[in-house]
Amino acid sequence: MDVSKNDAAVVIVDIINDFDFPEGPQLLENTKKILPNLKKLREYATQQSIPIIYVNDHYGIWQSDFQKVSDYCRNEQNKQIIDQMQPAPDDYFLIKPKHSGFYGTALESLLKELNVNHIIITGVAGDFCVLFTANDAHMREYTISVPKNCIASNEDQQNDRALTLMAEKLSADIDPV
Amino acid sequence: MDVSKNDAAVVIVDIINDFDFPEGPQLLENTKKILPNLKKLREYATQQSIPIIYVNDHYGIWQSDFQKVSDYCRNEQNKQIIDQMQPAPDDYFLIKPKHSGFYGTALESLLKELNVNHIIITGVAGDFCVLFTANDAHMREYTISVPKNCIASNEDQQNDRALTLMAEKLSADIDPV
Amino acid sequence: MDVSKNDAAVVIVDIINDFDFPEGPQLLENTKKILPNLKKLREYATQQSIPIIYVNDHYGIWQSDFQKVSDYCRNEQNKQIIDQMQPAPDDYFLIKPKHSGFYGTALESLLKELNVNHIIITGVAGDFCVLFTANDAHMREYTISVPKNCIASNEDQQNDRALTLMAEKLSADIDPV
Amino acid sequence: MDVSKNDAAVVIVDIINDFDFPEGPQLLENTKKILPNLKKLREYATQQSIPIIYVNDHYGIWQSDFQKVSDYCRNEQNKQIIDQMQPAPDDYFLIKPKHSGFYGTALESLLKELNVNHIIITGVAGDFCVLFTANDAHMREYTISVPKNCIASNEDQQNDRALTLMAEKLSADIDPV
Repeated sequence: MDVSKNDAAVVIVDIINDFDFPEGPQLLENTKKILPNLKKLREYATQQSIPIIYVNDHYGIWQSDFQKVSDYCRNEQNKQIIDQMQPAPDDYFLIKPKHSGFYGTALESLLKELNVNHIIITGVAGDFCVLFTANDAHMREYTISVPKNCIASNEDQQNDRALTLMAEKLSADIDPV
Repeated sequence: MDVSKNDAAVVIVDIINDFDFPEGPQLLENTKKILPNLKKLREYATQQSIPIIYVNDHYGIWQSDFQKVSDYCRNEQNKQIIDQMQPAPDDYFLIKPKHSGFYGTALESLLKELNVNHIIITGVAGDFCVLFTANDAHMREYTISVPKNCIASNEDQQNDRALTLMAEKLSADIDPV
Repeated sequence: MDVSKNDAAVVIVDIINDFDFPEGPQLLENTKKILPNLKKLREYATQQSIPIIYVNDHYGIWQSDFQKVSDYCRNEQNKQIIDQMQPAPDDYFLIKPKHSGFYGTALESLLKELNVNHIIITGVAGDFCVLFTANDAHMREYTISVPKNCIASNEDQQNDRALTLMAEKLSADIDPV
Repeated sequence: MDVSKNDAAVVIVDIINDFDFPEGPQLLENTKKILPNLKKLREYATQQSIPIIYVNDHYGIWQSDFQKVSDYCRNEQNKQIIDQMQPAPDDYFLIKPKHSGFYGTALESLLKELNVNHIIITGVAGDFCVLFTANDAHMREYTISVPKNCIASNEDQQNDRALTLMAEKLSADIDPV
């Protein structure tokens, strides 16, 4: 995937996650598999001065307090992910109330401020919050990449379905990083 | 003003504020004057279990980090306000990217979760971010109160104008607390 | 499917359609197959006084002129659909600029005015504009039905995928009418 | 006012109006006074190929049917306005469900399609729907003009107040046409 665009941003969906729901253990396993790719992408983006924007569930903490959300989510099972995907001091972190990263968030204002027209969408779950975010990006006329090795879903088949849908319907570039 | 409604919430606009703009000193003085009223309202709301929701400028810190915003804003001139208006542990704090508390924020989702239909809007500036928030509340069919002694603007005349407009056009109850 | 709810509305997506795009002929064929079901649902809804709301592409005609849109779309191939699915005098017809029926439309205001909490989503394409509309309905906390024999996509497999996704992720009732 | 910008559009708010509300007769009189200015602006815009976009109340007719809205509004008192301000075949006409021209409408999508960054806002009422539209334009980072002789309110004083507010807070150019 080409991430050299100077009007791009990386969006990381729901990676600070407690995985505490029925299919959480499956999603946790699948998320661990993409962790090296996410780190590689993040490193590359940092080198290229491409902004990195986390959009993340609030876990009932409506207080604009990243640390509380992170502490709430952290547990034995996911600490590897949370430690390795901790936002850097220059990264952006937005809390979202629903599935799409655009709904009820400042994402659109932030992207405008950063002069971003192309969004590289990553994270979990690929067939849910990532897909909703991609849909909303497309309606707002951003071009998108969804690198196939940077999203994870509860089941691989569902992940593939979502990727196909985003490639076909949203013209997403799904080449891996 | 009647704040006993069981479907109400108090919204406090931009009270965590650096007042660092041309007319900031004037607004700071006017904000100090309403501070006792804001505290009285907050106390009453807490007693009545009415939710308190801060919606506040991000000051360029797009990191869902209330403490950073508060630290950034704090200075000799405004510390009295920031200390006294510090959110309590159960209060909500949303960061807004623009003037209205509804634009690019989770406010509407939060109000739905809290079953709120009536919003008591307070804070600064009365003729700008408070007014925009009131407009947006009205379009979303919330009823509103804007207690006249709980908002402040750079100039009293502008504050009065905004109050008149909200009372006449938005059917706001502007009785003081 | 149970459509007797007194807080329901039927939403018909993009049924006034020129089918003039690469996979249009396929979608046209699949749409003809669901036409009897759509008519049955519409008839039932009318009997039960359930509001019927069309949300439809504008086809470049941004003039709030249903007739122009309908005339523009009408051709030899689709006239059966357009004739049979013509909105009745009491039906609502909203023009949408993008894929979701909620994005850039008055749908949410209309649903509030009609006291609707449950949406029965139908129309085309099932894996695109119907899916986007369902996503947005879910984020706005409407419950939804998507009767499986009332949506059509270019390909049956894609239609099934979208139905599965809406059933699993959005708790959509997909029982047929 | 300078309307020669090649990224501008004229927005005309609620000019197709039944004026059937308590202060309607006053607003009607004030609207007649600005009619020559609106016509002059429209003529100039047409010459310069500046798009003209009506955003207008629906009057309970949620059917994307401009003619029905126009017929509903037309009466002895306002027919002069409705006749003279009839949209031309190339003009755009969007129906809005609430006060702001941006809320629940396709205005933002249309402006993007037309590559518009500057909006010349006109129409009625200056201190209500025009003001709300201007607020929303400002939050979406459009620059705005509100020519002072192209808006009307129920009372001149309220009109002046709204103009002052838009000039001071929204950096609106309020020079007359």
